[in-house]
Amino acid sequence: MSRTIVAAVIQQAISSNNKMQNLRETAEHVRDAVEEGAELVVLQELHASRYFCQTEDPEFFDLAEELNGETQAFCCELAAELDIVLVMSGFERRAAGLYHNTAQIIDGEEGVVGIYRKMHIPDDPGFYEKFYFTPGDADGECHGFKPVQTRLGKLGVLVCWDQWYPEAARLMAMAGADLLIYPTAIGWDPEDEEEEQDRQLDAWLTIQRAHAVANGLPVLVANRTGFEASPEDDESGIEFWGTSFIAGPQGELLVSANVEEEGAYLAEIDLGRSEGVRRMWPYFRDRRVDAYGNLVKRWLK
Amino acid sequence: MSRTIVAAVIQQAISSNNKMQNLRETAEHVRDAVEEGAELVVLQELHASRYFCQTEDPEFFDLAEELNGETQAFCCELAAELDIVLVMSGFERRAAGLYHNTAQIIDGEEGVVGIYRKMHIPDDPGFYEKFYFTPGDADGECHGFKPVQTRLGKLGVLVCWDQWYPEAARLMAMAGADLLIYPTAIGWDPEDEEEEQDRQLDAWLTIQRAHAVANGLPVLVANRTGFEASPEDDESGIEFWGTSFIAGPQGELLVSANVEEEGAYLAEIDLGRSEGVRRMWPYFRDRRVDAYGNLVKRWLK
Repeated sequence: MSRTIVAAVIQQAISSNNKMQNLRETAEHVRDAVEEGAELVVLQELHASRYFCQTEDPEFFDLAEELNGETQAFCCELAAELDIVLVMSGFERRAAGLYHNTAQIIDGEEGVVGIYRKMHIPDDPGFYEKFYFTPGDADGECHGFKPVQTRLGKLGVLVCWDQWYPEAARLMAMAGADLLIYPTAIGWDPEDEEEEQDRQLDAWLTIQRAHAVANGLPVLVANRTGFEASPEDDESGIEFWGTSFIAGPQGELLVSANVEEEGAYLAEIDLGRSEGVRRMWPYFRDRRVDAYGNLVKRWLK
Repeated sequence: MSRTIVAAVIQQAISSNNKMQNLRETAEHVRDAVEEGAELVVLQELHASRYFCQTEDPEFFDLAEELNGETQAFCCELAAELDIVLVMSGFERRAAGLYHNTAQIIDGEEGVVGIYRKMHIPDDPGFYEKFYFTPGDADGECHGFKPVQTRLGKLGVLVCWDQWYPEAARLMAMAGADLLIYPTAIGWDPEDEEEEQDRQLDAWLTIQRAHAVANGLPVLVANRTGFEASPEDDESGIEFWGTSFIAGPQGELLVSANVEEEGAYLAEIDLGRSEGVRRMWPYFRDRRVDAYGNLVKRWLK
């Protein structure tokens, strides 16, 4: 039953909107990971630029690209050269006035084998994503929540805010995902108290590890690190909390980055363990699908 | 916004099927809790007897009672005397050949104000519950997942195996639960390796704390402790892992028992914090109810 792959999550600090320079730095980390044996590499959310959603500025739409833009071209070339499966994340211009936060899954020389458009879009102070991104479609060819087949298995790619929704992880699992993958960009408001910061980071770790537990699947999370000042005000900003990690199908941490350090974090994942874990604790056997109808409601009053 | 209650979870080792003796011991712990200020007390799963589901033996149906049996009478008297909200758990005989694993929610002198019949029933070596318990109804007056109104708020009571299902916690939250409550009876197979035991306990803590996170609600868990030998074989059995706990609405631990110690574990819970937590991280605002339809399917192929 054992089928082991080596996976890496890349954690980076981004200091400019010079996409080509950022991509070249990313490529260095990816090469490091591949030298250590990585076959699957996951990049953080919107890795080609700073996290521009700290403010609502129409100028930032200039950062968007068609799916087949320069970021995709760069990543496809890298994945083909290194013969790896690469999960990239970018700002997609689908049409004039219609933009998405989109992950692309690249399988070596085959190129892009699938995409995922972020389904849950946050919007709170410092994270004004509803201004920039239309949520992914519920229906159609590229609908979420649809895992993407690669040579290494079916990848259940979700993005950042999706990570708080057990529904998203469950639907990916039910569609046959072998791994759950989250490119993310989350951090602290430096003005929050340390205790509140600790609770936030721990909540974030906990819920994603719980998706592993609930579904008997490994979870890979690549998060941004470093401080990015707000474009409006150099003093305020986001302290991205890093802590990228890979967990096994019981939620156990296989590797975890610290808050600040950039780099590639690798783990060996035995995809065969999911079968064993699900035999021992067979949650899918007992789901009460006859009693879950209200999950498609907004609220029950 | 602040509205603070003091809650207790009771962790016990049970050495016999003498229900009255067990209930008297339970009452001592409940009295201790109330002396320390508890207004809400949660008992562990099937607290009046040993965990009889280690084997499939029709004799054990003798332990079952009608809803208004002696266990209910004892608990109602206790809750009325102490003027508390008490969550009890028992083996319900609903009709000949029809039994449930049922929690009853008692509000002081008012008596029983609602019940919850365990919706997800486990069945694995040592936990042969499908032999004993019919799953709770999806429809009807006492359907799950329906929180119960008490003077202290709406209690979203679920039972043990339910704890692995994000769907159950979500539906309780959407129905207006102010607290999620899990009476449980879970432990280790002593023959498992220590690393596996650690992963299991941590997975159990993680997924229940994640229900707090996903729903912005406090979570209370009362678990059994102590070793109970199998009725078939004194050497094998279950080492119940205790670790009863109360977590706040970000999943943060407010109190946690250790593996072995019996007793009442108390925490002050500010029910008003859920409002603040949900304003900061408003997951309910962004659920993709248009895209969750497949959650009522068994599997997507």
